[in-house]
Amino acid sequence: MATTRQPDAASNTEAMRRFFNPESIAVVGASATPGRIGYSIVDNLLSGGYQGKVYPINPSAGEVKGLKMYPSLQEAPGEVDVVIVAIPARAVPAVVPQAAARGAAGIVVISSGFAEIGNTALQEELVAAARKHNIRVVGPNTYGYYYTPMNLCATFCTPYNRKGGVALVSQSGGVGMAILGYSRSHQMGVSAIVGLGNKCDVDEDDLLDYFRQDPNTKVVAIHMEGLRDGRGFLRAAREITKTKPVVVLKAGRTSRGARAASSHTAALAGQDSVYDAAFRQSGVVRALTLEDLLDWARVLQMLPDPKGENVVIITGAGGLGVLLSDACEDFGLHLMSMPPGLDETFKQFIPPFGASGNPIDITGGEPPETYYRCILTALKEPQIHSLLIGYWHTLITPPMVFAETLYRAVKEAEEAGIRKPVVVNLAGDIEVHDAAQYLEERGIPSYPYATEKAAAALAAKYRSWRYSQGR
Amino acid sequence: MATTRQPDAASNTEAMRRFFNPESIAVVGASATPGRIGYSIVDNLLSGGYQGKVYPINPSAGEVKGLKMYPSLQEAPGEVDVVIVAIPARAVPAVVPQAAARGAAGIVVISSGFAEIGNTALQEELVAAARKHNIRVVGPNTYGYYYTPMNLCATFCTPYNRKGGVALVSQSGGVGMAILGYSRSHQMGVSAIVGLGNKCDVDEDDLLDYFRQDPNTKVVAIHMEGLRDGRGFLRAAREITKTKPVVVLKAGRTSRGARAASSHTAALAGQDSVYDAAFRQSGVVRALTLEDLLDWARVLQMLPDPKGENVVIITGAGGLGVLLSDACEDFGLHLMSMPPGLDETFKQFIPPFGASGNPIDITGGEPPETYYRCILTALKEPQIHSLLIGYWHTLITPPMVFAETLYRAVKEAEEAGIRKPVVVNLAGDIEVHDAAQYLEERGIPSYPYATEKAAAALAAKYRSWRYSQGR
Repeated sequence: MATTRQPDAASNTEAMRRFFNPESIAVVGASATPGRIGYSIVDNLLSGGYQGKVYPINPSAGEVKGLKMYPSLQEAPGEVDVVIVAIPARAVPAVVPQAAARGAAGIVVISSGFAEIGNTALQEELVAAARKHNIRVVGPNTYGYYYTPMNLCATFCTPYNRKGGVALVSQSGGVGMAILGYSRSHQMGVSAIVGLGNKCDVDEDDLLDYFRQDPNTKVVAIHMEGLRDGRGFLRAAREITKTKPVVVLKAGRTSRGARAASSHTAALAGQDSVYDAAFRQSGVVRALTLEDLLDWARVLQMLPDPKGENVVIITGAGGLGVLLSDACEDFGLHLMSMPPGLDETFKQFIPPFGASGNPIDITGGEPPETYYRCILTALKEPQIHSLLIGYWHTLITPPMVFAETLYRAVKEAEEAGIRKPVVVNLAGDIEVHDAAQYLEERGIPSYPYATEKAAAALAAKYRSWRYSQGR
Repeated sequence: MATTRQPDAASNTEAMRRFFNPESIAVVGASATPGRIGYSIVDNLLSGGYQGKVYPINPSAGEVKGLKMYPSLQEAPGEVDVVIVAIPARAVPAVVPQAAARGAAGIVVISSGFAEIGNTALQEELVAAARKHNIRVVGPNTYGYYYTPMNLCATFCTPYNRKGGVALVSQSGGVGMAILGYSRSHQMGVSAIVGLGNKCDVDEDDLLDYFRQDPNTKVVAIHMEGLRDGRGFLRAAREITKTKPVVVLKAGRTSRGARAASSHTAALAGQDSVYDAAFRQSGVVRALTLEDLLDWARVLQMLPDPKGENVVIITGAGGLGVLLSDACEDFGLHLMSMPPGLDETFKQFIPPFGASGNPIDITGGEPPETYYRCILTALKEPQIHSLLIGYWHTLITPPMVFAETLYRAVKEAEEAGIRKPVVVNLAGDIEVHDAAQYLEERGIPSYPYATEKAAAALAAKYRSWRYSQGR
């Protein structure tokens, strides 16, 4: 496969800025027929709320969604920042000079039929044309991209506009749709969702450079099947992870997975140990499953930085304390050894048969006030840096009462200028879902049932934080 | 801690039969005051729909929920199979002879205040009394138990009555409540939920022996912090796993977890490698997380036995195929090498740029019929033993249409006498939740987003099946 030019940093930054903040977009292959990809793209741009100019291009002209269609890019009435292309693959390279003539920063090639089906020659032709005309290419074989600060849904998938700090990048339409569904069902605020497809040109390092400088992006999550330019990724990842967490799911880790990847995006999945070392060196948090990728991205934008390694578990059920302790050790969290003085402080709050030390087991018969006192004390204690809470549903402290109590303690600490990572596990009847949602809406990651997920999420925070601290 | 007597197999079986199928239950420590544990137990027995006799016992007599309370066990008007005890710990041993006098098979000690708070002497006294009077003890320090075939909710927790084949056992109230909430939110049918608490007498092997013979139980899931009698567990587990899957979550796996366990249920967590070997030898499927324990139990009752090791992935998105392939290798599933003749068969159904082999990538532009043909062919092909489906949400095949199509193929195969394990991953927008529920209600395990969970669930089935086949 052709290697693409290495644009200088400044021109790359400018091209990416225009990709994500276009004043005008042309859709080559627009269609007036609902159900067609070229229709969905125009529809999503409009219904997503994009405020820039949209020029649908179709040789047969006509109208789509009240917009005049132009027979060619040339005939569109103004300058164009980005051209979305959804026409048969063989006709795509010819769009490049036309896009360049309209001053476009780049094209996004939705069309498939390139390297992923063995047609590397056509993909090379596209890359050569782009290089010649100084145009960047996203794709081919991509679902497009979203950028919520611009209400931009340049895709044939469903619109998504919940604003937030997570930028999600994938190399597969299937994973892209999972990203969308997961984001919507977990009410995850995102800045961008980008499908890189075959990534013949624009790739992860281009995006990392942009997201590093983008004030709307706090966390980056990437699904990749292979890296075209490992060195470029390492450089870009090292830079951004100093200030923003990056989570990566590398698909094709195993021999069967790598084989499947090569027939999917023609990716050279490569030696997994090389990827693993590269991720470690560049401060990337590696996820091994799709759920972890998405869950950690969501949580990383919620949690503040800790001030140190000392994690304390506070639980209403000894059994949860045991499972949370196992999970802490599994995921490399440091369970603080409770200093004697501090142990005495907590002992005041809990019944004599409760367990002090770490976990602090307040036992199941306690009213909300016991949770409140222990949690607030732990938040205010400088030796403790993060909290894992294991809630047990009881008559005396029902789920929503617990949630309100926990939030009261967190808010009181915040008013005293204290913010620490707090992650919650809730063991109880079905009402714990409402309690979890209440806490999530207030920025506290909360997991019904799955003790291990709470610990894994906090551990993801620690992995990225340690790198940013040079540890 | 005292060891308990080893009752002979026949008397143990009879005692367990009476525990789970009592004609009458007494509640020592019943209360007329809502919010008290002794009230909740009576309330749950009645509102859960238990049809046997309930005798509330309270020295001050009176009434609870329309039932006359008796001042003592002696004064209850009939024989008693099981006595639930919720009075202060120190008074519990004295209940034993009274229960024996009424012919009870055993007592369930809800009360805490025994070995878990260091009061081993009191627990030994309880055990000694039970041995002397030939009475079995569940607990102490337990939330009680459920047996849905009898509509029996002998617990202070919330009632649960969705009937099904999963028996769940835990050693922690917190985990017990997580079991309840997970079951309700996933609509999991259960036969029994049992809290063993400190398990001074009745333990996992007693339950395994009962569940092995219980036609209402198809799968057993156990959360444990330690084994009192490793040999007994091995024997009982070896027997039951020949015909019914057993999943175990051993808490206190790690050094910090083990330390927490010893202060929780006074469990000797023991060397984890010893447990691991024991589980392997006895055909137990080991889960490392609470979510896996519950999820696998749920799925194991849904999936039929495979006829062999050959797993085939059918997907609408190449990217899902890659992730599913990784997960298959991670979890020890055998991805069949597609024989040339069979490959040709599938090639007929999919576009030329789709990927045959395994995964079979039908690509995202295909109508429901393509899923249908590939899935039905795979179900009818004797060389293929199990299917993992990776669905991609597209305009041409929306989630519910896919779900109905898949079910049509599965039903058609079933009508031809063919049942194979089929597990589904759905990548798409939020509508995939409805599609997953549709499939789950029809007995097909379905996972939105998380590719790895679908593979892990199928792998749990294979692990238990291999043991039952002597592999």
